[in-house]
Amino acid sequence: MSAPKKVVLAYSGGLDTSIILKWLQTEYGCEVVTFTADLGQGEELDPARKKAELLGIKPENIYIEDIREEFVRDFVFPMFRANAQYEGLYLLGTSIARPLISKRLIEIAEETGADAVAHGATGKGNDQVRFELAAYALNPDIKVIAPWREWDLTSRTKLIDFAEKNQIPIAKDKRGEAPFSVDANLLHTSSEGKVLEDPAVDAPDYVYQRTVHPEDAPNEAEFIEVGFEKGDAVSINGEALSPANLLTSLNEYGRKHGVGRLDLVEGRFVGMKSRGIYETPGGTILLEAHRGIESITMDRGAMHLKDQIMPQYAELIYNGFWYSPEREMLQALIDKSQEHVTGTVRLKLFKGLARTVGRWSEHSLYSEEHVTFEDDAGAYDQKDAAGFIKLNALRLRLLAMRDRRMKGK
Amino acid sequence: MSAPKKVVLAYSGGLDTSIILKWLQTEYGCEVVTFTADLGQGEELDPARKKAELLGIKPENIYIEDIREEFVRDFVFPMFRANAQYEGLYLLGTSIARPLISKRLIEIAEETGADAVAHGATGKGNDQVRFELAAYALNPDIKVIAPWREWDLTSRTKLIDFAEKNQIPIAKDKRGEAPFSVDANLLHTSSEGKVLEDPAVDAPDYVYQRTVHPEDAPNEAEFIEVGFEKGDAVSINGEALSPANLLTSLNEYGRKHGVGRLDLVEGRFVGMKSRGIYETPGGTILLEAHRGIESITMDRGAMHLKDQIMPQYAELIYNGFWYSPEREMLQALIDKSQEHVTGTVRLKLFKGLARTVGRWSEHSLYSEEHVTFEDDAGAYDQKDAAGFIKLNALRLRLLAMRDRRMKGK
Amino acid sequence: MSAPKKVVLAYSGGLDTSIILKWLQTEYGCEVVTFTADLGQGEELDPARKKAELLGIKPENIYIEDIREEFVRDFVFPMFRANAQYEGLYLLGTSIARPLISKRLIEIAEETGADAVAHGATGKGNDQVRFELAAYALNPDIKVIAPWREWDLTSRTKLIDFAEKNQIPIAKDKRGEAPFSVDANLLHTSSEGKVLEDPAVDAPDYVYQRTVHPEDAPNEAEFIEVGFEKGDAVSINGEALSPANLLTSLNEYGRKHGVGRLDLVEGRFVGMKSRGIYETPGGTILLEAHRGIESITMDRGAMHLKDQIMPQYAELIYNGFWYSPEREMLQALIDKSQEHVTGTVRLKLFKGLARTVGRWSEHSLYSEEHVTFEDDAGAYDQKDAAGFIKLNALRLRLLAMRDRRMKGK
Amino acid sequence: MSAPKKVVLAYSGGLDTSIILKWLQTEYGCEVVTFTADLGQGEELDPARKKAELLGIKPENIYIEDIREEFVRDFVFPMFRANAQYEGLYLLGTSIARPLISKRLIEIAEETGADAVAHGATGKGNDQVRFELAAYALNPDIKVIAPWREWDLTSRTKLIDFAEKNQIPIAKDKRGEAPFSVDANLLHTSSEGKVLEDPAVDAPDYVYQRTVHPEDAPNEAEFIEVGFEKGDAVSINGEALSPANLLTSLNEYGRKHGVGRLDLVEGRFVGMKSRGIYETPGGTILLEAHRGIESITMDRGAMHLKDQIMPQYAELIYNGFWYSPEREMLQALIDKSQEHVTGTVRLKLFKGLARTVGRWSEHSLYSEEHVTFEDDAGAYDQKDAAGFIKLNALRLRLLAMRDRRMKGK
Repeated sequence: MSAPKKVVLAYSGGLDTSIILKWLQTEYGCEVVTFTADLGQGEELDPARKKAELLGIKPENIYIEDIREEFVRDFVFPMFRANAQYEGLYLLGTSIARPLISKRLIEIAEETGADAVAHGATGKGNDQVRFELAAYALNPDIKVIAPWREWDLTSRTKLIDFAEKNQIPIAKDKRGEAPFSVDANLLHTSSEGKVLEDPAVDAPDYVYQRTVHPEDAPNEAEFIEVGFEKGDAVSINGEALSPANLLTSLNEYGRKHGVGRLDLVEGRFVGMKSRGIYETPGGTILLEAHRGIESITMDRGAMHLKDQIMPQYAELIYNGFWYSPEREMLQALIDKSQEHVTGTVRLKLFKGLARTVGRWSEHSLYSEEHVTFEDDAGAYDQKDAAGFIKLNALRLRLLAMRDRRMKGK
Repeated sequence: MSAPKKVVLAYSGGLDTSIILKWLQTEYGCEVVTFTADLGQGEELDPARKKAELLGIKPENIYIEDIREEFVRDFVFPMFRANAQYEGLYLLGTSIARPLISKRLIEIAEETGADAVAHGATGKGNDQVRFELAAYALNPDIKVIAPWREWDLTSRTKLIDFAEKNQIPIAKDKRGEAPFSVDANLLHTSSEGKVLEDPAVDAPDYVYQRTVHPEDAPNEAEFIEVGFEKGDAVSINGEALSPANLLTSLNEYGRKHGVGRLDLVEGRFVGMKSRGIYETPGGTILLEAHRGIESITMDRGAMHLKDQIMPQYAELIYNGFWYSPEREMLQALIDKSQEHVTGTVRLKLFKGLARTVGRWSEHSLYSEEHVTFEDDAGAYDQKDAAGFIKLNALRLRLLAMRDRRMKGK
Repeated sequence: MSAPKKVVLAYSGGLDTSIILKWLQTEYGCEVVTFTADLGQGEELDPARKKAELLGIKPENIYIEDIREEFVRDFVFPMFRANAQYEGLYLLGTSIARPLISKRLIEIAEETGADAVAHGATGKGNDQVRFELAAYALNPDIKVIAPWREWDLTSRTKLIDFAEKNQIPIAKDKRGEAPFSVDANLLHTSSEGKVLEDPAVDAPDYVYQRTVHPEDAPNEAEFIEVGFEKGDAVSINGEALSPANLLTSLNEYGRKHGVGRLDLVEGRFVGMKSRGIYETPGGTILLEAHRGIESITMDRGAMHLKDQIMPQYAELIYNGFWYSPEREMLQALIDKSQEHVTGTVRLKLFKGLARTVGRWSEHSLYSEEHVTFEDDAGAYDQKDAAGFIKLNALRLRLLAMRDRRMKGK
Repeated sequence: MSAPKKVVLAYSGGLDTSIILKWLQTEYGCEVVTFTADLGQGEELDPARKKAELLGIKPENIYIEDIREEFVRDFVFPMFRANAQYEGLYLLGTSIARPLISKRLIEIAEETGADAVAHGATGKGNDQVRFELAAYALNPDIKVIAPWREWDLTSRTKLIDFAEKNQIPIAKDKRGEAPFSVDANLLHTSSEGKVLEDPAVDAPDYVYQRTVHPEDAPNEAEFIEVGFEKGDAVSINGEALSPANLLTSLNEYGRKHGVGRLDLVEGRFVGMKSRGIYETPGGTILLEAHRGIESITMDRGAMHLKDQIMPQYAELIYNGFWYSPEREMLQALIDKSQEHVTGTVRLKLFKGLARTVGRWSEHSLYSEEHVTFEDDAGAYDQKDAAGFIKLNALRLRLLAMRDRRMKGK
């Protein structure tokens, strides 16, 4: 790889990415463009602009954007149509944000004539893979710079030294090591590393930042109604909301009731297991609600097929293959299944739990006429069941006859 | 089908199966053998013996058995190795009991020289299918009698009339209609029908019989440790327990903390949707714990394959295909995956929630050496990640080159 | 089911469906509408009109249609996009025709105000299921009449008697039993039953009617080029052809070279195994060609996903679930994969074999630059492979470390 | 990686691996152990011993072994139980040999106290991955040396120079470039590269070395009978044969009749597409025969599940994951399905085609009694089909009712 001339950096404004910024300038002598996105991580973006300017970035090279609506509409919601859970439990909050960031990095590279992009993910994690697979899929000639895999700033001390030598401001609380590492966006907050590294040991209470402790949640349950159209949530308690506003509101409900905590050991794509604490307050409610509305509006055959391909879909997103033909094929299948997933779900929120307790829809396939214990006026002829069972049993009977025959030998 | 001469009836001792007993005697003039099983449904079995005798069943034709250990060891536990959930949520409590009952019915038929078996499931539900597929798979020549599909006792009034005419004792509270229908065993209690038939309406509080309301559960969390060997739970808080005793104990923990309630609309095999309220206190804790121990002892490739085939496995059990070659093939795959699923999981129980908070095992694949944010002493070379990503990206880059090429046309 | 008043009958003009026609008139006293379709079965349709008139059908109740183009365009081609083969080998020639016939039956029922449809499939086969599932999916209130399941004309003698009593003309060669049963359309000819019932015994030569014996095929190979656009064949040797004309032409090539014979024992949906002789001359070439063009234009990830879901897709078609949400979801996935399946395949036809020997496309993903044994000018860095392998191996190494550790115990 | 001290080299005795041998000695100054295996590639092994001695390998460091029986029994046959085909067509002849070679390399390393293994696969292909994943899975601490990824002998000229400088004998026909590259073993011969690199161009006739041209094959068909026990072939025309002898014999039949040629473009695990010419004469017959015996002895549910997981199984072998938990899990599933796959298949071989024409077995599930067009004496009640269809249709009817309802809005 020849040296990059102009690099678009995924820039948070924090110490680490500021060091990267300076390192790119000094190591490669290249022009740096910064991209700082509001994905709902809950931090002010203005300081990032000031810091970038301070580090010598030209104003026209500073990109700061609120991409929360795009994030929820085009990434989070399509994923939730699949009820995606990685390894049965993880709602993919970090994974789903990476392809959008890469997409903007590549677009800005094209706008600014940059030949490279850079990110602050380490060489041990999944995020490097997600950033880079997305970048290559969108621009096959892009150069990708991952300083953590390249440089020799391999300890906190060296990083701080580098920062001091290069006049990078260091917030007081950033001098020491953080007790664990955090990633956040509108969908979730994940925490990992350091105090969390022993999976036998309970996560300390202070790790949870996004939700109240279930013990401290209200002693009375709260009921909400989430409205759906074609598989996407569109309203809460009857009030129509944009995707990002809806998720923000669900997050607030979830936070208040302590919903969405997960303590998980998971298998990383790079081959090792890691332990993470995830808080996905709104997403956890959304998954439950989405399953709830599907339960009355989606045919059994459709649902079972969808459930069957879900783990592969989740794995693709986890592994960074959002922009792959197979993810797009699965999305086509999933989206096709959502045409009638329209209606309302009633949920009970209480002390960490979000549970569907009612659901209704004009698109409902639930037929009280058929299922009733009462007289069904001929909607269903119970005698049909005899033939249904007899033919379903035929192959099993032929197997049993063989077994008997072979035993007689 | 020629008329049956001797029938083994799955007999609960309740009014409905007593009416069936008498109906079999009068309709077919056949000898009846009764089989009453203790599957952990929480009812005395002695009255069933007395009632059978009262209805003229010869003592040698009355089978009453405690099959709880076999139920949990050979049915519930193998199923939990798969983390089986039907339509994403249902723990299959009713489905998994049916094949065992059918197995005993067929075995007793062989012992007693009976040519038929009979059950009390209706023609609208899944249970008829489960009973009968299992029966045919175990004895291809057996006759199966399902009175609810045959007789004309189509209303409560007619049933009561029949009972009165035939001197069948009727408990006072059985004269009227029950407000909903219940099935119970050691794994779960399910309730459906009548007051539950409108899926938009919350289930009344009195429907829940197996768990305390989360609101009434203790205000302090309780922590337990569940030990596993090769995928099966073997101890609680260090005390070794037999399968049935272990599940009984987990049920007690779950009941106390309000764990395991589910309000679900599901797709029946016979084609309609139905709404059920399930309470699976111990099973819900067990699923969480099993996932927890798998998370550190099972390889990613193994787990993802297992997750992928789970929905089909669950569907097979739900639909009644326990005794099918494909269920047995999937079981072979699943059991193969459990060889190292040994260790201990720590769970927090609180107000309806059971959550893994710690897990440890001699068989752990979690390598702190590899995952650490600290110096890993060369266990992992971050530069390997660059090549890993480059080659994973190659096909995506070739796709992107084609897209660019075709756009240029 | 109340008695039908007006029935649309799938009418071939042959003896069996003529008997059905008369039986419907006499049994139900209902008006009969006949639908006779040219699906490429190679029979004249005019006699069917005359015979229907003779049997008293009003001219406006006689529907005779050439639906070959629709058949190939909307049913055969979509299915071939999936490379569908049932039980690894069967190209589904009969299965794919049934939903189209049912669709027209239902449409004609709506046009003519009929309340029922009828077909001539027996109660043992798959076709009854296919006809009826399609009919019910398109009109949930339709009545379906399957005379073979209802009447008592259970022997050839009784059928001939009925025909004679009702003045139905009987061709001389139809008096006796046919040595086997045949179904044909533009995609294939299937033969089964009677002389073919023992699967151990070779099918007699005279069973094959659609292809020359490979022994009698030309001694020189013939090469053809099949052009594709978005997954569908559009030309042969550079000549653009409509779907039906293209398949007709491939059939002629296949017939001449003895391509496409299959002697198969398959599992029917109704539970038994049956043996069929299939001749699918053009379809066999088309499958090979389609795989050929996919091989250079389709990404590996896309192809593997497609291969993985194919058996379920084929099973759905075989079982009669063409009009089901899950078939449509899989079709959406498959169609998504075909966007770039455009180009040309060169095939060699010789003595029963059709084999791809060349393929090219503007959409090709094949990169000689990357794959070459020669100097690749840096397109591919072999050193990347080391990291790729190391990280793919990491989880296997962690497993091996555990095995070693546990053995030491 | 620290420098290796003793290396076990997969040594063919040819020029390339001789150069590697010398390069290992000179580059690393390490002791070399050679392992030369007879996998049925059809070459004398004696010259390899002499050449190794000539290059200074100590006699006790020269391992030459005939592992054909192990190859077929423990690798080829288990794979054929799955009917494995990669990308629908490739019989995995090269892929399946690699894990066995690696297994012996690792075992010899343990016997000889070597700390490294080396192979002659390039950095562009799949074989490096297969060799190395297997090696790491069997010994997590082993060093792997892949000279083609390391050295600077990047042209034929440089290789020849190196050989001459190091007194490595060069056969006359090895001075120039071979027109294509070949790999062979008892299962297949593959050819790729150079003259085969343009996938649009027919492979020259001289590329095919393992089979006669179909045009030159006998003008009369030959019929053979292959006997199976539990999924593995055990006899030909009634003669019991060991696994390797059986495959050798099938190869001879296939060679003579021109069976088993394949011209394929496939997706490599490392990300690019490549074109290969495969000749798998015996394997192609074996696959057909195995499908044939399964068709009468395997239940439909079992077969469909097996077909569904096959593509993943094939992908795992192709990608080099033979020694992975998920391959072993799938193998457990597949082996479970083979318990009754016992019987005999009759095949017709003619001009490139191998086709099942008969099959019989004591384990047959084929029931002429059920399938017959004649009177079945009550084995099957056609009226059962009505109920079977009605309940299978119920969910489709409910969908149709919804569609109608929603259109009315």
